[in-house]
Amino acid sequence: MLATLREVFALHGFGEIETRAVEPVERLAGDSDASKEIYAIGRLNAEEGGDRRAKEAKLGLHFDLTVPFARYVEENQGHLQFPFRRCQIQKVWRGERPQEGRFREFYQADIDVVGRDTLPEHLEAEVAIVMARALRALPLPPARMHLNNRGLVEGFYRGVGILDIAGALRSVDKLDKIGPDGVREELHGKGVSAAAVDAILELAAIQTPDGSFVDLVEALWDHSPIVDDADEARAQFDRGARSLAVLVDAVNAAVPETAIADLRIARGLDYYTGAVYETVLEGHEDLGSICSGGRYDSLVAGGGFPGVGMSIGVSRLVSRMLGAGIATASRSVPQAVLVAVTDEEHRGASSAIADRLRARGIATEVSPNAAKFGKQIQYADRRGIPFVWFPGAGDGTSPDGEVKDIRSGEQIPANADTWAPPTEDLKPRIVRG
Amino acid sequence: MLATLREVFALHGFGEIETRAVEPVERLAGDSDASKEIYAIGRLNAEEGGDRRAKEAKLGLHFDLTVPFARYVEENQGHLQFPFRRCQIQKVWRGERPQEGRFREFYQADIDVVGRDTLPEHLEAEVAIVMARALRALPLPPARMHLNNRGLVEGFYRGVGILDIAGALRSVDKLDKIGPDGVREELHGKGVSAAAVDAILELAAIQTPDGSFVDLVEALWDHSPIVDDADEARAQFDRGARSLAVLVDAVNAAVPETAIADLRIARGLDYYTGAVYETVLEGHEDLGSICSGGRYDSLVAGGGFPGVGMSIGVSRLVSRMLGAGIATASRSVPQAVLVAVTDEEHRGASSAIADRLRARGIATEVSPNAAKFGKQIQYADRRGIPFVWFPGAGDGTSPDGEVKDIRSGEQIPANADTWAPPTEDLKPRIVRG
Repeated sequence: MLATLREVFALHGFGEIETRAVEPVERLAGDSDASKEIYAIGRLNAEEGGDRRAKEAKLGLHFDLTVPFARYVEENQGHLQFPFRRCQIQKVWRGERPQEGRFREFYQADIDVVGRDTLPEHLEAEVAIVMARALRALPLPPARMHLNNRGLVEGFYRGVGILDIAGALRSVDKLDKIGPDGVREELHGKGVSAAAVDAILELAAIQTPDGSFVDLVEALWDHSPIVDDADEARAQFDRGARSLAVLVDAVNAAVPETAIADLRIARGLDYYTGAVYETVLEGHEDLGSICSGGRYDSLVAGGGFPGVGMSIGVSRLVSRMLGAGIATASRSVPQAVLVAVTDEEHRGASSAIADRLRARGIATEVSPNAAKFGKQIQYADRRGIPFVWFPGAGDGTSPDGEVKDIRSGEQIPANADTWAPPTEDLKPRIVRG
Repeated sequence: MLATLREVFALHGFGEIETRAVEPVERLAGDSDASKEIYAIGRLNAEEGGDRRAKEAKLGLHFDLTVPFARYVEENQGHLQFPFRRCQIQKVWRGERPQEGRFREFYQADIDVVGRDTLPEHLEAEVAIVMARALRALPLPPARMHLNNRGLVEGFYRGVGILDIAGALRSVDKLDKIGPDGVREELHGKGVSAAAVDAILELAAIQTPDGSFVDLVEALWDHSPIVDDADEARAQFDRGARSLAVLVDAVNAAVPETAIADLRIARGLDYYTGAVYETVLEGHEDLGSICSGGRYDSLVAGGGFPGVGMSIGVSRLVSRMLGAGIATASRSVPQAVLVAVTDEEHRGASSAIADRLRARGIATEVSPNAAKFGKQIQYADRRGIPFVWFPGAGDGTSPDGEVKDIRSGEQIPANADTWAPPTEDLKPRIVRG
């Protein structure tokens, strides 16, 4: 799976970087929600004085790939060419309560494009297209990308007079969890008027597979309780609506039936300023979003470096693929062939055959023992190795022998310089369950 | 580099496993030397009671891949087929003083074959051959594998009356660092007689590129101060010598001019019982061993699971390759082609060309802007992208255009369904410096 993701990312010009597992805790702890989950590290037996120990205690394992990427860009800005495209596929660590789909150590696969001062809007579509193609390259049920635009939402919220926009977004983000009544209650508690709450819940209910949401949100604005002096809010709202319509159409043009404009998508983080993305796997909606992200104005604390990125939660996806029988591996070992050994004196002949096969890219093991052939076939069978090769008589200089497909039982004469297993047996692959 | 190692390992039937980054500290701390270097982890803000916190504090980051592999085999022994072959390529962490070639976070690449109760001796050669081939597949100076046999050495040490064999081995392991006089002094301090010290230093000086060392060590035995009642020691010595001769010849037969019998190789760890390996890169002897390992009787504390394994210190090797100009990357980005954009209205035409190229495995980026072509060529040049594609006029349905090799300046008409870059430009590759 990781190889497939890497390949799709590389085809689109996203080169891979890797960062160290630790970051300074003060960088990691910026987001107060996440800081509870940080694992700090320290030398087990720090003997070199308190100062040093204290200094080292300020490192923690990264809990996502965004914090390390931000540091990377900041530190290397003089050497990077912008817009800078990168993918990053690494483990992250969170001290969460482990449960299905929630791990304390898991893989994330991120792509981002970051500009120095500006970043063209069409990259919001490109990032979504690359991720949609990556998901299609995996043996998964259809993935639906739910898209929204932060400007559209913020403009609307400001239009109906909401002051604490981040707080309102965080409430709306809980729609799935606590339902409209729960959100209504929270927003009332935050001092939002009943009419405004109705309006933003109406906005959140709009979902279209194309640009037709534009007419719906404009009509909603027209009959909502808009405050005086809302021209700027309206302009932000209009820009966001146009941008979202372009985005949905561009993604669907490149990867048909993928994108949906979904005005409910909030993404709790303050961080996002343009497109926001969530992705749901058909039939596995309970998993939540398997691939999320958005557009941001500033990757680093000091400002500058606007970007857009998305992240796949790889481990939770693999866990579901295996657990729900969506896909599995065709075998657990790389080798396609076991070369039998007639007796220990002729092990060299078997090794020579194996090397001929390996020279042509066929992964091969030489039987570790010279037991009866029946036992050696059983050895292959237990490991899922599909073919057993029997060397011909002689001193090992001949490529001739016989090869048995132990699944069908068929055994044929074969030459180790020309025979190859069927393509689908050459390497282990992911197969639909 | 990691991909090359994985490929060679897989061709020889070593499937990859991956283990979590942490292990219980009591497992990690078994080796007292290493325990100083362990990084323990703990939740930054543990709020769920002291008990839980105390429990979590007992986890540490692994400092090698052997401890996690031993746990893996122990926990999964009911599901594994033995002999079990695995490769493992992961980061490890050590709280060392950072310096050239010594990192606090670095990659190791290990292969091991582990049996349940027994393990055939020929696997000692196989593991060395696989590693020698992996090193040859990388753009490195010639790597020399220095091989020894623990049984030979122990038999000899017992023969000359040494009681603390592990202690003597640890002293001899320092030959490079402290020289023969330093070793002599240490051994005298440990109560070894002058005659015995002379004998084991003579043994350590023997080095042959083939089995001819056997005559030399036998002659040395014959004129050394052997204790009474040394029959068992002699038998162990002889078995080890025969085994080492077979090993050196087998490795050199498979990978010519690689293996040397080097009786100086001690490997400090008590752990090893048969073959021991170190590997030195010609012209880079100061790096120390880049690939080491050996045969052991028991992977896990309880006994059982004899195995043989070797480990490459990948990061120190990469660091030297880059630092000494041995090798570098042909470019830092995956894409071979930048498709120019005539103007923003025709971005779709450029994207269509890019998708035609990608469909044939050619990594391609579409220019993020529609600046003057000179600027777009400069954009490619700065990133090391070798080709720029100029789409033909029209609506984007035609695959025709022109492609420029920006290194030579040559520009030719090309069809996006048939043109491909030269093989050496298709992907970034490692090139000799």
